[in-house]
Amino acid sequence: MILTVTPNTALAITYRVATLRPHTSHRVSEVTERPGGKGVDVARVLAALGHEVAVTGFAGGPTGRIVRDRLAAVPGLLDALVPVAGATRRTVTVADGRTGDTTRLDEPGPLITPAEWSALQETYLDLLGSASAVALCGSLPPGVPVGAYAGLVRAARAAGVPVLLDTGGEPLRRGIAARPDVITPNADELAELTGSHEPLRATVDARRRGARAVVASFGPDGLLAATPEGHWRAAPPARPHGGAAGAVTAGLLSGLVEGLPWPDRLARAAALAAAAVAAPAADGFDRGVYEELLGRVAVTGEVSAA
Amino acid sequence: MILTVTPNTALAITYRVATLRPHTSHRVSEVTERPGGKGVDVARVLAALGHEVAVTGFAGGPTGRIVRDRLAAVPGLLDALVPVAGATRRTVTVADGRTGDTTRLDEPGPLITPAEWSALQETYLDLLGSASAVALCGSLPPGVPVGAYAGLVRAARAAGVPVLLDTGGEPLRRGIAARPDVITPNADELAELTGSHEPLRATVDARRRGARAVVASFGPDGLLAATPEGHWRAAPPARPHGGAAGAVTAGLLSGLVEGLPWPDRLARAAALAAAAVAAPAADGFDRGVYEELLGRVAVTGEVSAA
Repeated sequence: MILTVTPNTALAITYRVATLRPHTSHRVSEVTERPGGKGVDVARVLAALGHEVAVTGFAGGPTGRIVRDRLAAVPGLLDALVPVAGATRRTVTVADGRTGDTTRLDEPGPLITPAEWSALQETYLDLLGSASAVALCGSLPPGVPVGAYAGLVRAARAAGVPVLLDTGGEPLRRGIAARPDVITPNADELAELTGSHEPLRATVDARRRGARAVVASFGPDGLLAATPEGHWRAAPPARPHGGAAGAVTAGLLSGLVEGLPWPDRLARAAALAAAAVAAPAADGFDRGVYEELLGRVAVTGEVSAA
Repeated sequence: MILTVTPNTALAITYRVATLRPHTSHRVSEVTERPGGKGVDVARVLAALGHEVAVTGFAGGPTGRIVRDRLAAVPGLLDALVPVAGATRRTVTVADGRTGDTTRLDEPGPLITPAEWSALQETYLDLLGSASAVALCGSLPPGVPVGAYAGLVRAARAAGVPVLLDTGGEPLRRGIAARPDVITPNADELAELTGSHEPLRATVDARRRGARAVVASFGPDGLLAATPEGHWRAAPPARPHGGAAGAVTAGLLSGLVEGLPWPDRLARAAALAAAAVAAPAADGFDRGVYEELLGRVAVTGEVSAA
């Protein structure tokens, strides 16, 4: 089983409007709701790829109930969320009907008590025993110590379970020092971590900070990977817009537990990212687009730092 | 008891962000939730003024449960909402921390079945028997006939209960033909109804279409009233920004059931509107601001159409 950890789960709401104009009123023409938070997105993609997956993190309040009800309907997904007194946050994505551009509003999340954080750590240690890989994903809600991911990375390494860290800011800075197997920053997270906006230089520098491998996402420009086995660039044939909803992380984990070589993991991640983007409001990704793109991702190796 | 009808109740969510920039991501720094929908806003103000008030309309789903839980905590307010299978909509107001300007996103509301609409009509007829006045407020959710308010106006008139209609668009156009005692359009609703952007001309014209009195709101420019007893303009001393959250309608109803003359009703409505605007995220209005402004509203009579 693959384990994903999402401390800041969300009820992910998407609104379609004609055009978003600040300081005016809008009638929303279409509302969709799905379970969200980065690790939940990753788990949905993994389950759709046929993996057994367990989801842990926090859930509470009416929004948490909706998240759990929806997760219960996903085949192959085990809900191991820890109940909390606060309410799971909402994220609101406003999709502009004319341009397709999106605007995000992310609530901060419920205040987690020390007892709730301890309960999550216990659940995590229990689940590690049967995990083939683990992903630690997304932001931390208020009350969770900023070094939380560093501790979870060390526990995974102690248990011999490959661990992927998919977050940004200070949680990434602290977490990378605990030597995760893979980190998957986007361009902004990578620049914030390294201080460099030069993609290859920043990717290589991030690896020096403690990650065994770095796979950085540059949106339509694809992925850049720095690993012990080499450096690669993976670009899908199309140039999709917007966020990949956990697809890169899911693709890498899926390839890792199947023992694929790095170029094949990267092709899978890049094809999934493009397929996820093709169906932003749907659950997970578009299988037809994914299968069509998988053989057409260009993975070029032995790129060298300028 | 004063009765307010809100077919499209809402869970009203307010987000504070630093600055709303379309097509970017935002961390919400503050989240507030309150029961919403225009007639619910009116009822909260009336209850705070010391009136007994009953609220009907539809409520359903997890959002409807939150609305009902919150209403149960309001002293003097009777919850007579009709349960429905669909979920009560959300409205999201994004407040810009720098300018205080707001951006609204209104969900359309749940699909109402014919049986649910019949149940609301029965509840309404029951409550009319003990009502001293009734306000029909806001938009209609999908499934409710567009002529719904016209029927509710006629039933109130048949029962001898003064009826105020506070809506816009086609529901207002249909409803006004049934001869409500008061309508309370804002500038946009008035212009859409009459085709005129000239305030006094449009207010007088709206009255000719069937309303016994018209009280039109022009935001910071105050109120314009065309009634059988005369025409008045009411302007608060300050020039507030933003929406009045049911305060004008509540002020007029409150003055009506107390038998106040029109100028006093208008002063109350204008002072409440300014006081509501001073506390947009709070429940209802700011009592200190209201009491301070009440004696300082300028009500000028015998305005004549240009």
